[in-house]
Amino acid sequence: MKLNGVLIEDTFAEAFSMKVARVLITAVSDRWVRVATTEATGFGTSIIGCPSEAGVEKYLTPSETPDGRPGAYIQIFQGKFEKLEEQVLERIGQCVLTAPTTAVFNGLSDAEKQFNTGFKLKFFADGYDEEGEIAGRKVYKIPMMEGDFIIEENIGAVGGVAGGNFFILAENQMASLTAAEVASDTILKMEGSITPFPGGIVASGSKIGSNKYKFLKASTNERFCPTLKNKIEDTQVPPEVNGIYEIVVNGISVDAVKDAMRAGISAATKIPGVLRISAGNYGGKLGKYKISLSELL
Amino acid sequence: MKLNGVLIEDTFAEAFSMKVARVLITAVSDRWVRVATTEATGFGTSIIGCPSEAGVEKYLTPSETPDGRPGAYIQIFQGKFEKLEEQVLERIGQCVLTAPTTAVFNGLSDAEKQFNTGFKLKFFADGYDEEGEIAGRKVYKIPMMEGDFIIEENIGAVGGVAGGNFFILAENQMASLTAAEVASDTILKMEGSITPFPGGIVASGSKIGSNKYKFLKASTNERFCPTLKNKIEDTQVPPEVNGIYEIVVNGISVDAVKDAMRAGISAATKIPGVLRISAGNYGGKLGKYKISLSELL
Amino acid sequence: MKLNGVLIEDTFAEAFSMKVARVLITAVSDRWVRVATTEATGFGTSIIGCPSEAGVEKYLTPSETPDGRPGAYIQIFQGKFEKLEEQVLERIGQCVLTAPTTAVFNGLSDAEKQFNTGFKLKFFADGYDEEGEIAGRKVYKIPMMEGDFIIEENIGAVGGVAGGNFFILAENQMASLTAAEVASDTILKMEGSITPFPGGIVASGSKIGSNKYKFLKASTNERFCPTLKNKIEDTQVPPEVNGIYEIVVNGISVDAVKDAMRAGISAATKIPGVLRISAGNYGGKLGKYKISLSELL
Amino acid sequence: MKLNGVLIEDTFAEAFSMKVARVLITAVSDRWVRVATTEATGFGTSIIGCPSEAGVEKYLTPSETPDGRPGAYIQIFQGKFEKLEEQVLERIGQCVLTAPTTAVFNGLSDAEKQFNTGFKLKFFADGYDEEGEIAGRKVYKIPMMEGDFIIEENIGAVGGVAGGNFFILAENQMASLTAAEVASDTILKMEGSITPFPGGIVASGSKIGSNKYKFLKASTNERFCPTLKNKIEDTQVPPEVNGIYEIVVNGISVDAVKDAMRAGISAATKIPGVLRISAGNYGGKLGKYKISLSELL
Repeated sequence: MKLNGVLIEDTFAEAFSMKVARVLITAVSDRWVRVATTEATGFGTSIIGCPSEAGVEKYLTPSETPDGRPGAYIQIFQGKFEKLEEQVLERIGQCVLTAPTTAVFNGLSDAEKQFNTGFKLKFFADGYDEEGEIAGRKVYKIPMMEGDFIIEENIGAVGGVAGGNFFILAENQMASLTAAEVASDTILKMEGSITPFPGGIVASGSKIGSNKYKFLKASTNERFCPTLKNKIEDTQVPPEVNGIYEIVVNGISVDAVKDAMRAGISAATKIPGVLRISAGNYGGKLGKYKISLSELL
Repeated sequence: MKLNGVLIEDTFAEAFSMKVARVLITAVSDRWVRVATTEATGFGTSIIGCPSEAGVEKYLTPSETPDGRPGAYIQIFQGKFEKLEEQVLERIGQCVLTAPTTAVFNGLSDAEKQFNTGFKLKFFADGYDEEGEIAGRKVYKIPMMEGDFIIEENIGAVGGVAGGNFFILAENQMASLTAAEVASDTILKMEGSITPFPGGIVASGSKIGSNKYKFLKASTNERFCPTLKNKIEDTQVPPEVNGIYEIVVNGISVDAVKDAMRAGISAATKIPGVLRISAGNYGGKLGKYKISLSELL
Repeated sequence: MKLNGVLIEDTFAEAFSMKVARVLITAVSDRWVRVATTEATGFGTSIIGCPSEAGVEKYLTPSETPDGRPGAYIQIFQGKFEKLEEQVLERIGQCVLTAPTTAVFNGLSDAEKQFNTGFKLKFFADGYDEEGEIAGRKVYKIPMMEGDFIIEENIGAVGGVAGGNFFILAENQMASLTAAEVASDTILKMEGSITPFPGGIVASGSKIGSNKYKFLKASTNERFCPTLKNKIEDTQVPPEVNGIYEIVVNGISVDAVKDAMRAGISAATKIPGVLRISAGNYGGKLGKYKISLSELL
Repeated sequence: MKLNGVLIEDTFAEAFSMKVARVLITAVSDRWVRVATTEATGFGTSIIGCPSEAGVEKYLTPSETPDGRPGAYIQIFQGKFEKLEEQVLERIGQCVLTAPTTAVFNGLSDAEKQFNTGFKLKFFADGYDEEGEIAGRKVYKIPMMEGDFIIEENIGAVGGVAGGNFFILAENQMASLTAAEVASDTILKMEGSITPFPGGIVASGSKIGSNKYKFLKASTNERFCPTLKNKIEDTQVPPEVNGIYEIVVNGISVDAVKDAMRAGISAATKIPGVLRISAGNYGGKLGKYKISLSELL
């Protein structure tokens, strides 16, 4: 099929189950929402080498937050709830509690699994904490040098989805990059999903393991490398393609991941020079979810 | 003494020795320099709970980088070289190699200690890497989906300084915050130093340990909490002060830390509503460096 | 009355009738939407000295625009339709047609008054223009050095409202400024209104005419100047207030102006150090609209 | 000749004489420097349809400004000093005096021509102005609602250069656009020059007059339109080129314009997909300055 003149390959993205916590962070201004959420979700692209996968889901207007200030949802992913709880505590404790003017609320109040992150962090007050209520939520007030830090007692977590993805193949690198930028900017405005890689984009789409080195968990996907297309026999890079970026999407549900992929692909196909959309999978053997591009669109 | 009408307290900042690696990262545009360096230095405020301390040192114009593209220096801190080398490998491998259009160069070519991070990362090419030279530096070209990723063979590290700091005391929280913003924006334009906390600012200045809970490594510094000043007897918050932020400065040398503190304090004292500048120390018992505010200015 | 602990004065904002054109501009990326709309609405704070009043109304996601790309509404104000039509032609022709990747659509398709701005600009194509259709709208394609520029045939205009306003009085300048920043950031996310002054904020609230100089149309409103409060007898600045900013709101309808004022005031009252909200009027003698703060909230 | 593998055409840019005023604007933070200077230089791309040509020259650190705050130089261009003086007064009075926390200083203190813009604007104080001195400069303090506005007595102007330019020809529109973005971002960091068009880039390079319509002053340069290259006989668009942007550079001297062109071209040639650099001229018949690309590099 074609979308906006761009070929959509007849393939599917293969996605996985991971645990996800969702935190709603507010601050006095857009600047501090952005800074706190960026710091808290940094060094969080892939659990291959990062302590967790993490990203900003969506920025929120004052009318959308419990305390009437600007805010954002962030998501943090790990394989198991125990490790996830540790990461939530450390990322909130080190990167949000320390950030100017922030407050922290539960982003999944209805989830069965609840971490008592706020309860744990109130000990930082060294006995000077107080309980309070904001918009019906139980919060702790922790006196600090700036004033008081507010945090809700619990942070919810659920079984989520990681590794939704699509590839943008273009005439050259800059066309592919611009399309990837616009796709990730578009997904940032959607609910329920994150793009954990830097700026939402993967420059280095990889294969599992390595042909040459047994000690590697992942290595470059040489069949999709434009600069190798004339050097290897089994290249998958079409002759007219010279730049490929991948967008990886995680989310709190498979529907959130699908919505993000749909919007991102649609935005990417608007960029002049984009030729094809594809997706990454392992033949359906590894992941729980198969997201067909054609069904999506 | 007074600076721009603001009282500079007669005290000193106490700073510590840590190991620091310095990396020069370039990309096709300012956007991707910013994104890659922010991701690579995220979740890096304090080694109390983060895998390392990290931050962007300074953005560079194309004329200041080896490959003539926009760039930035980042710094990564850990207690020992072994742990630091791991962190450099993981942060570069997960957050820079994966980011669109980046290249990585040695930020401390003359240092005695050199990590062969580039040599290790070239295995990602699964045998398709090539050697090259850029501005006299030995680099590896790693074919990827976007094109080629460039990385210099080594990344240098030295003994650095962590925990340089100053406090901004103001009439209210917003005056203190604006001054802290301007101070950290100013330090971002200086060479050799970083401000590892979110947006360069600490909202939650802490004391070592806790009066009440033995299991805590650090807790709120209640004597500097404006909202407690009428509730505790030994408050250090002057009656006219209602907001305090701390700026923490790390650097590759004590001179770099001092230059940053000087410029940051000078900028902060320009903000209406700022009343005093102070600094944090442990009576000189813990840290190797004592940086006197009055000698600094 | 009080809102979030802040006194809302029992007064009203006095607003005026002006003609307003509304233009929907799209571009390949958020960057170019922002740049083109900012350039096109610059030098547009007040018709006292600017060729028109102008501002960005709201940024739009790809799903909200006719061509599926990022976009924004802008508004341009003048006293009469003739002058307004000139300004629309010049601002679009000089600042949007010239900007990379932009397309221009009618922001008020249902308005009775329609300017044929697109028809006029197509002559720039020197005969090489073509007609097309996007989302049911008749457009012209104008070949340019970058590729094709797209513009809809007509731009609609209506009778709008200018000069809606409120004052933010705070303990000091930085508290007032932060509140004004947050208020204007909040209004930027709302539909139907603009804040024409720089960054949405007026630093220099004025009175009509001058006490001392007959040749002046407007001069400083000395009774609201914090630095004069101890020098003049009829000051209106309460003793505890040391910083005041004004937000001016224009819109395509009085309801749009009211919605913006309500959201902006609500956001401003969340900022620590804000003491009062007031508004500017001329005793109700000059403007068509009286917007009571207490009825608004 | 070739630069970074990109063909530099053997041609020259033709530039013109215009009068230019240079203003140094400071503010409490980077945000307000950016907002005030952007508003003051908006609607200022070309005197064909704008009241003047204008742009931000360069952002300044606190150590580079008279009052130790963040700042920027802006430049405003007109054909004659009389019209220029009017524009300086209106743009400063409407867009800088009204903007939060700004101060205004002379950017060309040594110029023979000096406009007494500060003297004229002090009447806004309605008699409450005071004289002062900052870094040896005579300034006026004008009480306003925010606090005091500071402006130096005079603003200098000289004979400057307008219309320096180069073209970036690339494989497709996005490669050309990215290169133009990077070129204009690079020039923004240089001293003495501005790029007056939106975001520094011209999408609509034009020819003087029109082949078809006598009433037009300028029309599309059809020989450089990629979408017309197969439709007209005298196209100048090489077969492999599908996107062209122009960068226009104005400056306070021909050397400043040349420095900007050199840095911008060098940065543009680093972008993958860029094929050629050219420049616009009128055979040398109209402009005072001929800037040869090959001599420049």
